Amino acid sequence: MLYLVGLGLADEKDITVRGLEVVKKAERVYLEAYTSILLVNKDKLEAFYGRPVIEADRELVETGSDDILAGADKVDIAFLVVGDPFGATTHTDLVLRARELGIESKVIPNASIMSGIGCTGLQLYNFGQTVSMVFFTETWKPSSYYDRVKENVQLGLHTLVLLDIKVKEQSLENMARGRLIYEPPRYMTVAQCAGQMLETEEERKEGVFGPDSLAVGAARVGAPDQNLVAGTLKELSEVDMGQPLHSLVLLGRRAHDLERDYIRRFAVDQATFDANWQKGYGSSH
Amino acid sequence: MLYLVGLGLADEKDITVRGLEVVKKAERVYLEAYTSILLVNKDKLEAFYGRPVIEADRELVETGSDDILAGADKVDIAFLVVGDPFGATTHTDLVLRARELGIESKVIPNASIMSGIGCTGLQLYNFGQTVSMVFFTETWKPSSYYDRVKENVQLGLHTLVLLDIKVKEQSLENMARGRLIYEPPRYMTVAQCAGQMLETEEERKEGVFGPDSLAVGAARVGAPDQNLVAGTLKELSEVDMGQPLHSLVLLGRRAHDLERDYIRRFAVDQATFDANWQKGYGSSH
Repeated sequence: MLYLVGLGLADEKDITVRGLEVVKKAERVYLEAYTSILLVNKDKLEAFYGRPVIEADRELVETGSDDILAGADKVDIAFLVVGDPFGATTHTDLVLRARELGIESKVIPNASIMSGIGCTGLQLYNFGQTVSMVFFTETWKPSSYYDRVKENVQLGLHTLVLLDIKVKEQSLENMARGRLIYEPPRYMTVAQCAGQMLETEEERKEGVFGPDSLAVGAARVGAPDQNLVAGTLKELSEVDMGQPLHSLVLLGRRAHDLERDYIRRFAVDQATFDANWQKGYGSSH
Repeated sequence: MLYLVGLGLADEKDITVRGLEVVKKAERVYLEAYTSILLVNKDKLEAFYGRPVIEADRELVETGSDDILAGADKVDIAFLVVGDPFGATTHTDLVLRARELGIESKVIPNASIMSGIGCTGLQLYNFGQTVSMVFFTETWKPSSYYDRVKENVQLGLHTLVLLDIKVKEQSLENMARGRLIYEPPRYMTVAQCAGQMLETEEERKEGVFGPDSLAVGAARVGAPDQNLVAGTLKELSEVDMGQPLHSLVLLGRRAHDLERDYIRRFAVDQATFDANWQKGYGSSH
């Protein structure tokens, strides 16, 4: 049996009781370590589980999945995923491959950022489609996300923006020379995301959002030091929310007064927040 | 401290390790028992926690919240919520009330149906806004959900439909006579939901969906006997998916081939599924 086990969002204790039972009994335990991270490292997990954990990078999962699945028709293999196994990154390909090999799969769900973002007090019912923001470079500033956000904005819905992480990436030079030297990991911040959004708006000029648009930044959702900040995109582009992971929600026009009351408490500046709220949000808009 | 603890979706072992620690140490433990249910009853939870659990009905939470919060400035109170505390039903009102009383709150996230529905293999990125379906009566068939679904359909996005549950409801007659007699609990099935959707379409006639529209029914997400079925709304209106809770996803036109491959495996009828897929879904539409 292949078990896909969600680890939740913050640390080793966010695994469910059922998930922990699976991990303790599995023959091999893999940790998917390239689409998201916990706030603790592998050593901490191994100590907590009392088991060795094998880090599975993108290469292993995408091209070496048969190694992961080896023997899973007879023994239990646990594949651990930060968040939920079918949340922000789905692992349907691994399940489909297992099925081709005659191996059954079971999923142990857990909190995903896709629902955990509810901790902002914004109603999940009022969210449109989720988008991803990648790190812009000098020459590559993809704006396809802007079209999705535009669709949400036109309906007055919130948009969850998931922020890029770069783990075990090679520089172009090292890749070209075949040197297995990896860059230090990078995690996009709320400030970088807000800055890039304003950059896209400057280029596209369709008025989907602007410096005064309200948004919520969320850092380390579910952790003891979770941090939430509400403000304009301009304000958020200058905010320091600390350690990763970060996410951002662009507020939709249909936002409810109860949502306002909740997020206003952690506004960068309540006067600015109120002024911008009155310009474009809530039941009168 | 007020702890809002997510219990996840299926049974007593879906609580997280951190959540269980909180429950074991809290002075009083409440279970929110009117917006969702686990597949096990309160006795099972009490045996697993080794603690008494107080059932909190709608009345206690909405008008008696100060009783729940009594003493929480000095001791720890655990308020247990099926799924995630800020998922399908948010408990921001309780947190705001706690704050007014000078009581801090912490949330222990868990799987919510809002992300757990990813187990269908449908990408959470491709979902629009979530809607709720209430039990229709002879004289009351609200169709405001249809407008929301229409917005999603026009964008080609999936729609998660959350299904009504009626727990501890009085009949109009018993209510009028002040008799505290409650009706047996009712949980909407996928078949009832699909049937009501077709009823709304017959009335509104805006072509948002029809008998041939593809959808996925999900029952007992996250449980060992989780059940997924893909088919047309007509097919799903006749399907028996067993015990509650159920949810339904109306497929969006933008659905990806990888999503098709995944859900096709549990189609009521693969030939019908393929024929209807080709008529309106995937990259060519």
